[in-house]
Amino acid sequence: MTGKDLHDIPPNHPRYESLKLRAKIVDAYKTGVLADSGLIAHGRGEAFDYLIGEKTTAGAKRAIETAAAYLLLADYPVISVNGNTAALVPREIVALAGKLNARIEINLFYRTSKRLKAIEKVLKDAGAVDVLGDEDNPLNISGLESPRSRVSRDGVYKADVVLVPLEDGDRAEALVSNGKKVLTVDLNPLSRTAKTSTVTIVDNLVRAVTHLISSVDRLKEMENSQLHNIVNGFDNKKNLDEALRYMKGNLP
Amino acid sequence: MTGKDLHDIPPNHPRYESLKLRAKIVDAYKTGVLADSGLIAHGRGEAFDYLIGEKTTAGAKRAIETAAAYLLLADYPVISVNGNTAALVPREIVALAGKLNARIEINLFYRTSKRLKAIEKVLKDAGAVDVLGDEDNPLNISGLESPRSRVSRDGVYKADVVLVPLEDGDRAEALVSNGKKVLTVDLNPLSRTAKTSTVTIVDNLVRAVTHLISSVDRLKEMENSQLHNIVNGFDNKKNLDEALRYMKGNLP
Repeated sequence: MTGKDLHDIPPNHPRYESLKLRAKIVDAYKTGVLADSGLIAHGRGEAFDYLIGEKTTAGAKRAIETAAAYLLLADYPVISVNGNTAALVPREIVALAGKLNARIEINLFYRTSKRLKAIEKVLKDAGAVDVLGDEDNPLNISGLESPRSRVSRDGVYKADVVLVPLEDGDRAEALVSNGKKVLTVDLNPLSRTAKTSTVTIVDNLVRAVTHLISSVDRLKEMENSQLHNIVNGFDNKKNLDEALRYMKGNLP
Repeated sequence: MTGKDLHDIPPNHPRYESLKLRAKIVDAYKTGVLADSGLIAHGRGEAFDYLIGEKTTAGAKRAIETAAAYLLLADYPVISVNGNTAALVPREIVALAGKLNARIEINLFYRTSKRLKAIEKVLKDAGAVDVLGDEDNPLNISGLESPRSRVSRDGVYKADVVLVPLEDGDRAEALVSNGKKVLTVDLNPLSRTAKTSTVTIVDNLVRAVTHLISSVDRLKEMENSQLHNIVNGFDNKKNLDEALRYMKGNLP
């Protein structure tokens, strides 16, 4: 595709940022990090991002702060990574895990050993020392058909709080009904994942994770009682309704 | 991906129709019919289709009827086909071209000879006898950089009315400023293509083309004066505003 492909983006293009992410997604597909549906899912995200004006809204910032509080209060936080997350924010995920002393676990909807290895490589190249998800003795969480129920013994299975960006609806539901606090990033406020999760950040993953890292840095200085106040003051349904109103307001 | 890929869709799945189209799109990517960006574009379309409730609205039906009238009134109608169109509705495009005595021309944004051949094969397998777009002596339409300005001498160049589903904004603009009547199908009522075209059908291409074929069959019986009345009674901007209001109304 020399000379006329997605990597050929003039920096002054009005949609430069969006096109740069698209190029990353395509590269990840070609290296086996992404499944077919990952490319299509990215396109769906683009449409919803367009509807929120491609910026982090006040409501999303509130959800991000709440997610940071949950992660800092957690006994055993785990970050669950899929192909799209690995494609877009591998360094940020590793940095966040470091700050939180959280485990990173790869969880794939379309699971193949090849994709798992490809994602593991991306995360290790980004600085991850230890990545879960490929053990010989996984456990299963209830409410899901195998192999989608597969989780790591020292990862999601043990976690009280799971940050799981871009998750499938069935799996988000199963995690919640297994008693986990589920923090997700999902641009579609109408999705089952968005509605089911404990905290839904309606934002582009790239912006959301950057903000989440700053929030963790800031909230680290707080007392637990203050963090509890943040958590208790958050209403996910109200926040999703606000995101929908925001999208409606952006439609001319 | 045996056993856990996009082709594994139980017919009772609530999103069966949408997932079936997604499988077609992925197959087309694998056979070289679609460029990378075609998969992502399909995902964007899915999001907007969701917002119109995945059905053909009254406003879309009005646009479809108007498009049918334009095509029947045309002196030299041409149907411009890209990868996504070839992937989703090849047989319908061939049937429509037959009813209208219209030429079919392949026009690609990411043009490679390999993709052109792959799309030509899909169209010929679907029954097309003659497909334009691969001539040694193409012409250029003004207002676009080569090679995106490339059109066929006996195709788009000569056309007074062009049906060009899923077109890029720049190219839709160039066609209009070259005096063509441009009929498009675009699920995003905010896109430049939607705003620039003569008639914008805000609908899923698969539903839109099926309806368009029925409309052509029905309007074929009409006098030209009646067809002119349909064309003159249509206001594309008003129709797009209605599509936006419809989407807003569907957001809870």
